[in-house]
Amino acid sequence: MKKSFGPETIVFPTPVWCVGSYDKDGNPNIMTIAWGGICCSKPPCVTVSVRKAAYTYGNIMERRAYTLNVPSARYVKEADYFGIASGKSADKFKVAGLTPVKGELVDAPYVKEFPMILECNVVHTYELGLHTQFVGEIMDVKVDESCLDDEGKPDILKIQPIVYTPQAQKYYAIGEFLGKGFSIGKELT
Amino acid sequence: MKKSFGPETIVFPTPVWCVGSYDKDGNPNIMTIAWGGICCSKPPCVTVSVRKAAYTYGNIMERRAYTLNVPSARYVKEADYFGIASGKSADKFKVAGLTPVKGELVDAPYVKEFPMILECNVVHTYELGLHTQFVGEIMDVKVDESCLDDEGKPDILKIQPIVYTPQAQKYYAIGEFLGKGFSIGKELT
Repeated sequence: MKKSFGPETIVFPTPVWCVGSYDKDGNPNIMTIAWGGICCSKPPCVTVSVRKAAYTYGNIMERRAYTLNVPSARYVKEADYFGIASGKSADKFKVAGLTPVKGELVDAPYVKEFPMILECNVVHTYELGLHTQFVGEIMDVKVDESCLDDEGKPDILKIQPIVYTPQAQKYYAIGEFLGKGFSIGKELT
Repeated sequence: MKKSFGPETIVFPTPVWCVGSYDKDGNPNIMTIAWGGICCSKPPCVTVSVRKAAYTYGNIMERRAYTLNVPSARYVKEADYFGIASGKSADKFKVAGLTPVKGELVDAPYVKEFPMILECNVVHTYELGLHTQFVGEIMDVKVDESCLDDEGKPDILKIQPIVYTPQAQKYYAIGEFLGKGFSIGKELT
């Protein structure tokens, strides 16, 4: 039997991504979100949803750019802090002891210590209700060389991204390898 | 040092979600996606991105509804198959031996055997390029009673959703608990 929870934003898994932006004075800010995902392959685009009340909202509206930073599990405390504090009143990079680096291709800062970074320029802005969805075209993906596999591809077990559970509000690590995509299902075809 | 991968759709984690829809004749179809995410809290909305070439695309355009089904790790083979085969030529529910159930609130079928189901009505359709993004308002979330925690909330370790890694094309399970959201970061404030 299934239990109904009604119209709620509960779905698993959701990501833990830190969105980097500059304010009008050029100060770097960073906030954590779980509302986002890849939305198009060509052009390569990823969305992040932000409330108008967030300091990041004004920054992205003005600069039309953001970075998407994937924190490793070892930075779960910092990632949580980035979702609690506001850039209106705190220099979150400084408090967390992390380093803002100016994006190579976009007008937004990324987190030097995080292993996976996407540089994005905003190509669409959709007003959905409490949240505004920013569709960012991915200009570059940067990954720490220490987090690549034998084939030179990003290795999720080395990057150690964090998974978030809405409602329960808990963070989890990545677990065991389950199978190869576009492969293990072939026996059913 | 970070290595640049250029403008690619590589980011971790991405979800493994199976999208249920009816075709014009009322036949149930199901396809697996990794491009999607929650996009708004009020109204509660979740996006799925689908290529025009997919059978699901025409179904959702016509019915303006879909279900989002979260497969457990034990169904990773079936989920992979749902991303390989096309509903144009296969009855994927039948081949996989899974049961389509008519949505209670929307005009789309869900997978009875999967532990977490969202019923969604399409409220926006955005053409982004290769993919079309469907924004679905979440009308209900249904979770197997056997997958709830002691507080009656959905338990990710019981639901066992799957994480996907773009480019490497691999599936992973959920790992260890890392901390409580809006809590473990407070010591930095």
